[in-house]
Amino acid sequence: AEGGDANESTDLNESETQKALEDIDGCQNEIDALNEKASEEILKVEQKYNKLRRPFFDKRNELIERIPNFWVTAFVNHPQISAILDQEEEESLHYLKRVEVEEFEDIKSGYKIKFHFKSNPYFTDSVLCKEFHLAPTGDPESKSTQINWKNGMDLAARGQAAANSGNSRKRRHGNKRNFFMWFLDNGDPSADDIAEVIKDDMWPNPLQYYLAPDTEVEENGISDY
Amino acid sequence: AEGGDANESTDLNESETQKALEDIDGCQNEIDALNEKASEEILKVEQKYNKLRRPFFDKRNELIERIPNFWVTAFVNHPQISAILDQEEEESLHYLKRVEVEEFEDIKSGYKIKFHFKSNPYFTDSVLCKEFHLAPTGDPESKSTQINWKNGMDLAARGQAAANSGNSRKRRHGNKRNFFMWFLDNGDPSADDIAEVIKDDMWPNPLQYYLAPDTEVEENGISDY
Ligand SMILES: [Ca+2]
Ligand SMILES: [Ca+2]
Ligand SMILES: [Mg+2]
Ligand SMILES: [Mg+2]
Repeated sequence: AEGGDANESTDLNESETQKALEDIDGCQNEIDALNEKASEEILKVEQKYNKLRRPFFDKRNELIERIPNFWVTAFVNHPQISAILDQEEEESLHYLKRVEVEEFEDIKSGYKIKFHFKSNPYFTDSVLCKEFHLAPTGDPESKSTQINWKNGMDLAARGQAAANSGNSRKRRHGNKRNFFMWFLDNGDPSADDIAEVIKDDMWPNPLQYYLAPDTEVEENGISDY
Repeated sequence: AEGGDANESTDLNESETQKALEDIDGCQNEIDALNEKASEEILKVEQKYNKLRRPFFDKRNELIERIPNFWVTAFVNHPQISAILDQEEEESLHYLKRVEVEEFEDIKSGYKIKFHFKSNPYFTDSVLCKEFHLAPTGDPESKSTQINWKNGMDLAARGQAAANSGNSRKRRHGNKRNFFMWFLDNGDPSADDIAEVIKDDMWPNPLQYYLAPDTEVEENGISDY
């Protein structure tokens, strides 16, 4: 035992310490078991309310689908989404008619963000989906619908070219990505800030953004939002 | 209405749009009410398990208190805590005999981290407590026991002097803070990374750190931990 501690009569010798550590391990097992039960009960509450909310999300989407440019307006009014949305992409999102965010039944496995589009000049797909799930290793993974761009309309490639270019005007905001580049990026699912914003901020209440324009933030810039 | 949308017969005119927006607001109210009920049920689960876990945390602390240098060993073996712990502070923590993390009953209001010390050469206090709570405004706030340092033993002031000094050796790790500077810092409670590490990582299971030394990370440096 070290220094002054060895002289305290309440401290343990080495074999008593070993026993105490085993007893602490026993305590930890009880605590871990309770933590697991708590997580399971919380998951059940979340599953219950996902089911209860579903009809309201469905009804909400029916109503939204009839309002011209609802989603593009909400996106343009959201500080973090508008920060990555370039001008041509904003045009393309006028064809966005429906957004859905769905968690997997067991919640733990992940969720999907679905973008439903009207017929448009940019790509032939009617639904673009970005999905977050767990790999067999347990690591977070994502996958994105491969976008079937019409001729000369690859907005992600244009964004990449702008990001690479030496053109200081195009790069003035320090933009390294645009919306469709974000959509197609599966490099670091656990750090997908835009997906998190759509799932946890936009999807729970898009109406607040449709109704209330906010100051645009510069990506990587300071904002007083 | 804009562009192509105005010609779609399913789109609404302005007063129909207004009605649809009111109906969406109605949906949102229902969704918000369900979200609130979900949060309340989840809070009840957390309160239930806080009560169930409490006797095991108490028993664990009784056992820990008899093991020489349990907490200093766990802290030194934790990558993020050891990164801010300077050498003299590590000495002082040999007198740390008990740590407690307690959430307020309603959980939402905050929590306390209590450090219980044996009689020591550094300060006269037997308990140092850092508490996190909500200000009347609803903003997160924290407060720390004012430490009654013995003569010439102000370890936080020493850390501040080292951080300010031009001495490149003392600053080689880019350390801007040490443990007691962290303890006393109430400047940005919502971004208190060390408190979060103690509450969510160390407190749930300190035994894993007592038993298993990990590579120290440089504060602000790259680690392969
Ligand atoms: Ca065990
Ligand atoms: Ca309302
Ligand atoms: Mg427009
Ligand atoms: Mg030691």
